[in-house]
Amino acid sequence: MVDPVKYEVALERIQTHLDAADYDAAATLLRGLHPADAAEILNELNDDEQSALVNRLETEQLADVFEQMYEEEMAEVAEHLDRETLVDMLEAMEPDAAADLLGEMEPEEAAGLIGEMDEPAEVTALLQYPEDEAGGIMNLPPPSLRRWMRVREAVSYLREHYEDAEEIFYLYVLDRNTRLIGLVNLRALILADPEQTIEMIMSRDVISVRVDADQEEAAQLLARYDLLALPVVDANNRLVGIITVDDLVDVIEEEATEDIYRLAGVGDDAAIDSPFWQILRNRLPWLVMNLGTAFLAAYVVSLFDATIAKVTILAALMPIVTGQGGNAGTQTMTVVVRSLALHEVEPSDTPYTLWREMRVGLVNGLVVGTLVGLIVAVFTSNPWLGVVIGLAMLGNMVVAGTFGTLVPMLLRRIGVDPALASSIFVTATTDVMGFALFLGLSTLLIKLIL
Amino acid sequence: MVDPVKYEVALERIQTHLDAADYDAAATLLRGLHPADAAEILNELNDDEQSALVNRLETEQLADVFEQMYEEEMAEVAEHLDRETLVDMLEAMEPDAAADLLGEMEPEEAAGLIGEMDEPAEVTALLQYPEDEAGGIMNLPPPSLRRWMRVREAVSYLREHYEDAEEIFYLYVLDRNTRLIGLVNLRALILADPEQTIEMIMSRDVISVRVDADQEEAAQLLARYDLLALPVVDANNRLVGIITVDDLVDVIEEEATEDIYRLAGVGDDAAIDSPFWQILRNRLPWLVMNLGTAFLAAYVVSLFDATIAKVTILAALMPIVTGQGGNAGTQTMTVVVRSLALHEVEPSDTPYTLWREMRVGLVNGLVVGTLVGLIVAVFTSNPWLGVVIGLAMLGNMVVAGTFGTLVPMLLRRIGVDPALASSIFVTATTDVMGFALFLGLSTLLIKLIL
Repeated sequence: MVDPVKYEVALERIQTHLDAADYDAAATLLRGLHPADAAEILNELNDDEQSALVNRLETEQLADVFEQMYEEEMAEVAEHLDRETLVDMLEAMEPDAAADLLGEMEPEEAAGLIGEMDEPAEVTALLQYPEDEAGGIMNLPPPSLRRWMRVREAVSYLREHYEDAEEIFYLYVLDRNTRLIGLVNLRALILADPEQTIEMIMSRDVISVRVDADQEEAAQLLARYDLLALPVVDANNRLVGIITVDDLVDVIEEEATEDIYRLAGVGDDAAIDSPFWQILRNRLPWLVMNLGTAFLAAYVVSLFDATIAKVTILAALMPIVTGQGGNAGTQTMTVVVRSLALHEVEPSDTPYTLWREMRVGLVNGLVVGTLVGLIVAVFTSNPWLGVVIGLAMLGNMVVAGTFGTLVPMLLRRIGVDPALASSIFVTATTDVMGFALFLGLSTLLIKLIL
Repeated sequence: MVDPVKYEVALERIQTHLDAADYDAAATLLRGLHPADAAEILNELNDDEQSALVNRLETEQLADVFEQMYEEEMAEVAEHLDRETLVDMLEAMEPDAAADLLGEMEPEEAAGLIGEMDEPAEVTALLQYPEDEAGGIMNLPPPSLRRWMRVREAVSYLREHYEDAEEIFYLYVLDRNTRLIGLVNLRALILADPEQTIEMIMSRDVISVRVDADQEEAAQLLARYDLLALPVVDANNRLVGIITVDDLVDVIEEEATEDIYRLAGVGDDAAIDSPFWQILRNRLPWLVMNLGTAFLAAYVVSLFDATIAKVTILAALMPIVTGQGGNAGTQTMTVVVRSLALHEVEPSDTPYTLWREMRVGLVNGLVVGTLVGLIVAVFTSNPWLGVVIGLAMLGNMVVAGTFGTLVPMLLRRIGVDPALASSIFVTATTDVMGFALFLGLSTLLIKLIL
């Protein structure tokens, strides 16, 4: 059993060796770790330490460790390698990982490295696909079978061609034009009579994905049909690659992170260690767009200038109405946006969802409105002020439920990602309506609250 | 290749048959679909339609379709089955899915059904584990090997015991006390000489998880080491189950959704179709907690009552300062919370992250502050008012970056989930500081802005 503290202990011991400048001892420890752990430890270290360690690993070990890193991490650590080691490592890596690393580099630099590789064909084949499409996350197809092969022939064919291939779970069957016609899983191959033909044991119902499909579509197919690998085909149904389930995990986490970040307005390519200018480029537009909303709300408040001049406590109380409206709107909006992303609801469910969220808003509004009304009535000794803020709160909660549902549903229907723009519209509504309801009611009932 | 519109077309055709009350034709179409598609279509239908269709499926088909549903969906659709069919289906289902369905029912009802099953042992073994632990998502272990077996013996052993087992990728090797000592992957078995012993081809470096570990830990191990299946062991390292990679997808999506929902204050068990009372129970506490923050901010504003009475436009402008602070704080906080969840940062990275986010806040504040200052100066013809709001905005942006970093880092360090409580503290800070900075500066410079 893997001890959860093993990684922490290893990191600490390696750090101790590094602090004592005993790089050989540190490298020995690193070599004994699972490549995934070694990769994570390397990412924790500073540039000098990384450089000292990677230059003490063999090419094969380097390749294994690099394959476990994210693309940006690979590019960062690769800077410590001399050109020759880098080329050797690229040749030893799985082609999809090598293509990912090369894709992170400047085009001229990548082209230069490819030129020095002995067998760059596989890598260049993969490099042509955009990184967010099925082609961008696939690997080259494993050795494939023909339908007329006997099971025993297939097994000896695999013995010959299998050793180098990435771990395989399904074997694909191609026709003479390399079009995908069937699938055999390893279990069926083990259980079959050696004299049976592949055609007799293959399944014809192969789920595949087009090479130019979105990576999210590939992930959804893998997840939906509980597949371990998904064959990738071109427009003529020729097998050009496979996507394995371990790539899926990254895609699912990426898509979830994208949604979370879009909701918060920090850009889809945000990362905790993005370059400074990129953070600004990601976040400033969101803040500036929200300024429009903010000035609109300020304009609404300014309409009630005379009322506020008479009852200045209104200025202190009004952010309570808009703040709670914003919170309630965010609650509804978040559930709707995430449920749309997970395909748990569709825009066609709007009437039902709207009806439910409006009722939730009503009950939330009754509870919170009563509470706020009572507190305000007691502390200001002004019962009518309590009534006014309570009613405004109630109204704004229903507004929050309504627009928290409608905005993402409408965005989805017109083809805009709801995560990208919902919160700006929902907040605009709860701000404007919150101020208008509270200050409007106060103006109407000004004689009672004076 | 699976046609992406196939599912939509099938749904439409089934719906047409149902509308014409031709249930047999609808059931025939349903039977021809992949169980995952059939499950999704069933979930789209109303109660009467579900009932008509499920009662037209064979036990085996029912079991396949149910295995593709989420737990709540299973429980809902199962209500349309008579008791006998339900018991037959439970027996035909994979034990982990059957346990999930039984776990959704009232304990007495589940116990009654188990009592009527012929071989309930496997299901009851799984039912004992909490649903968010490794034991709660595992299935029973597949047939295992012994180390003294020859490869040919192992293959014939598997031929005998394999047919019924869920799809397997690794074979586990046990000692005489059923303790886990090794692992053989199917590929190694195919490639090995039939006379070799299992001990010769097995790998001893087996990554496993304790049955009482959190499901998230199991998911992380699978993802980190790119495993297809993870053996689950008890305190004595005896093999009690396996978790396969298809369960992982659900766990990853669940954990991401949990984070998103916690950030929005809607409860971790929120779902678009939760019962009404549960929605309220999830959301009301968050709104009530935020009231505390809101009244604190209102109190700060009330301290500047006299200033607002003199310059009522301040009331209209002040929400701009707090709103933008809240947005910037949410940006920083969201990136920090998500990066903590993905283990891309740890609390020990606080100084570095803080330094960067404060600088981001400074630049954001300079840009947004200048913009707001200019707009306000022009529209109010009051340049000093522009200066005041610009400076307050600048200050609040730095506050947002600072507390957007510190709050989640500190919560993580004291063992509270940052997603759960960060936003309440961050908003409290940006509200209080925003009002205090803007109204405080206005009070200091009252003579200039009057």
